Amino acid sequence: MITLSSDFGTPYPAAMRGVILQRTDTRVIDIAHDFPRQDIRTAAFWLNEILPWFPPAVHCAVVDPGVGTNRDAIAARVADHILIGPDNGLLRPVARTIATQSSASIEWFKLEWEPESNTFHGRDVFAPAAAEVHETTLELLQENGKASVTSPNVDLQLPTPEVEQRRITGEVLVVDGFGNAITNIPDSILKNQIDSCDRLKINGITVPYVSSFAEVDKNKPLVTIGSHGNAELAVNQGRGDIAFDVTVGDKVVIEKEST
Amino acid sequence: MITLSSDFGTPYPAAMRGVILQRTDTRVIDIAHDFPRQDIRTAAFWLNEILPWFPPAVHCAVVDPGVGTNRDAIAARVADHILIGPDNGLLRPVARTIATQSSASIEWFKLEWEPESNTFHGRDVFAPAAAEVHETTLELLQENGKASVTSPNVDLQLPTPEVEQRRITGEVLVVDGFGNAITNIPDSILKNQIDSCDRLKINGITVPYVSSFAEVDKNKPLVTIGSHGNAELAVNQGRGDIAFDVTVGDKVVIEKEST
Amino acid sequence: MITLSSDFGTPYPAAMRGVILQRTDTRVIDIAHDFPRQDIRTAAFWLNEILPWFPPAVHCAVVDPGVGTNRDAIAARVADHILIGPDNGLLRPVARTIATQSSASIEWFKLEWEPESNTFHGRDVFAPAAAEVHETTLELLQENGKASVTSPNVDLQLPTPEVEQRRITGEVLVVDGFGNAITNIPDSILKNQIDSCDRLKINGITVPYVSSFAEVDKNKPLVTIGSHGNAELAVNQGRGDIAFDVTVGDKVVIEKEST
Repeated sequence: MITLSSDFGTPYPAAMRGVILQRTDTRVIDIAHDFPRQDIRTAAFWLNEILPWFPPAVHCAVVDPGVGTNRDAIAARVADHILIGPDNGLLRPVARTIATQSSASIEWFKLEWEPESNTFHGRDVFAPAAAEVHETTLELLQENGKASVTSPNVDLQLPTPEVEQRRITGEVLVVDGFGNAITNIPDSILKNQIDSCDRLKINGITVPYVSSFAEVDKNKPLVTIGSHGNAELAVNQGRGDIAFDVTVGDKVVIEKEST
Repeated sequence: MITLSSDFGTPYPAAMRGVILQRTDTRVIDIAHDFPRQDIRTAAFWLNEILPWFPPAVHCAVVDPGVGTNRDAIAARVADHILIGPDNGLLRPVARTIATQSSASIEWFKLEWEPESNTFHGRDVFAPAAAEVHETTLELLQENGKASVTSPNVDLQLPTPEVEQRRITGEVLVVDGFGNAITNIPDSILKNQIDSCDRLKINGITVPYVSSFAEVDKNKPLVTIGSHGNAELAVNQGRGDIAFDVTVGDKVVIEKEST
Repeated sequence: MITLSSDFGTPYPAAMRGVILQRTDTRVIDIAHDFPRQDIRTAAFWLNEILPWFPPAVHCAVVDPGVGTNRDAIAARVADHILIGPDNGLLRPVARTIATQSSASIEWFKLEWEPESNTFHGRDVFAPAAAEVHETTLELLQENGKASVTSPNVDLQLPTPEVEQRRITGEVLVVDGFGNAITNIPDSILKNQIDSCDRLKINGITVPYVSSFAEVDKNKPLVTIGSHGNAELAVNQGRGDIAFDVTVGDKVVIEKEST
């Protein structure tokens, strides 16, 4: 099984699929190709959110503002998954998550593929590499000079919130298609710092703290723990980013209502 | 074969696919994930339009404004198809259509899945349920306490037109991506009520009544019977919704030109 | 393997997929369904760009402003590929490209399918034809009266640039989702006419001539040879169409900086 993720839109990813199907009969699955253009952090968030739900697979992910420069093409082997993409931090959060979930370590490899173009390594480097990694082993690729053990040059850590007494300062990591503003404040911190309460103050606005959107009336704001396990600023059947006037990177301060 | 339909956009449906592929090797097909957000009627129209073209399958469909409330997760077994989704009317039109086409009855089941989240039952309830229904039988799920015979709580009927002497009053059910305004007025009623004629009056505007878009000049309005079998207000290579100034839910009166 | 391409958006292509899966178990792959509406030339460009990367397949492509008129449904057999679509020029560029790459000739066939609708031949003609062509042979279809040798009525040639002494006049063929303005000026002509140089004058604007986007600073314009092998007007991490103020069909004059 090979998965494909990118910021290529259409129809470019279809060429990647063709290149892969020239080399393997395995199942090929599109995760998403509409990640915000060249936004490595947002793509890293979504890969981290989606890929761990998959059975063992080769995951090929390309958000690559440095295409054609000397940044490396790399692979991470962790548990039964192999991640393939540019060495720009994109693969680091999901690699760590799978490692933690599986109590596994991460092995990194540099890949050597000579591209036909300098503008579409998705088709010319990452897709053929993913197919060949799928059909053979990283050990054999090492013997053939197409892979070598490496340490990635670029790290990327999703930011962590600051915690004071009953006051948590985080930020908006991404806004999803519904308009939900997903923060970097996990359920665990929220639970530990703030006693059980029905309402929370978010950037000064007090809203219900609920377990599902529909617990408030239609078009009313709320805060909930989203499917990713983080606090999410939302509006029932509406857009949380507008109601809370936040966008990606904006600060989010969560306090108890009474403070 | 499992099909997936939702209003989730991307990349959320990929998590559903991962969850399914953890449980089954079957083919998984995306119908659409860009149904208008939380618009049950439009999604029900499209499911009714698309799913009957498929061979026997488990169809998992999620447009679910009540996610996290106590609305049930249900399954309908009809002919060789199984439909899975929330009990909010979404599955009713397509279930009836398949029943009619196959002279079959519909059996309804309530599904019992304990979700990990209250905001993404597509991933946590409907996807694993679809996979398990595909791999086993509803009878075995009943024995294991994961399914029980039920009657759905919520019905949804697509509206039917009113018919007077040579005057039919319907409404716009959906506007498709081309801008075609698809009405609820079926070919059969149009044929019965209005003698064969070359032109029809639509909301007071007289336009050619043709069998294909290209029978009128580019950018000219027309009425035709669409691929769904209903009257459709269109413009050759343009947008019918704009030319006829209609949107979803608007009244559509069709008369003979001479009246 | 069957591929699907169209300008149908969603969810119409899912009906094509259902129709195909009623008739065959083969792999079905979406190339793209968001080609600009009824824009045959742009779709022909992308088919020509993407389909040659695939292993042998039946490729079903539908951009069809003349649906329901007496334009033919046709198939092209070239090397190990079969192309299926309307006789409006859509299939000609990619057929020629595959023929050239494989040193093969193109055989054309007229297809005879009686459609259920006059508005959705993708579902009612091209999808079932693609499935049946995949499952049998064009020779057997000829014996059954469903195919006959033909010559296509409509040609379509992507325009070629005019070349003077160190001055090339081409045009913008398409603008991709990144905003890259892809011209009809191939690498070979550029190399032959213009001596190696670091900068080129594009419509009077002098910009770096580079081999990858990232060789210029973020938001700076450039010209490069894209993955399609043609000159492409781009901006590193921005939109080339805006920077060069061009859209599809606009003239592009490339000169040496010094002229």
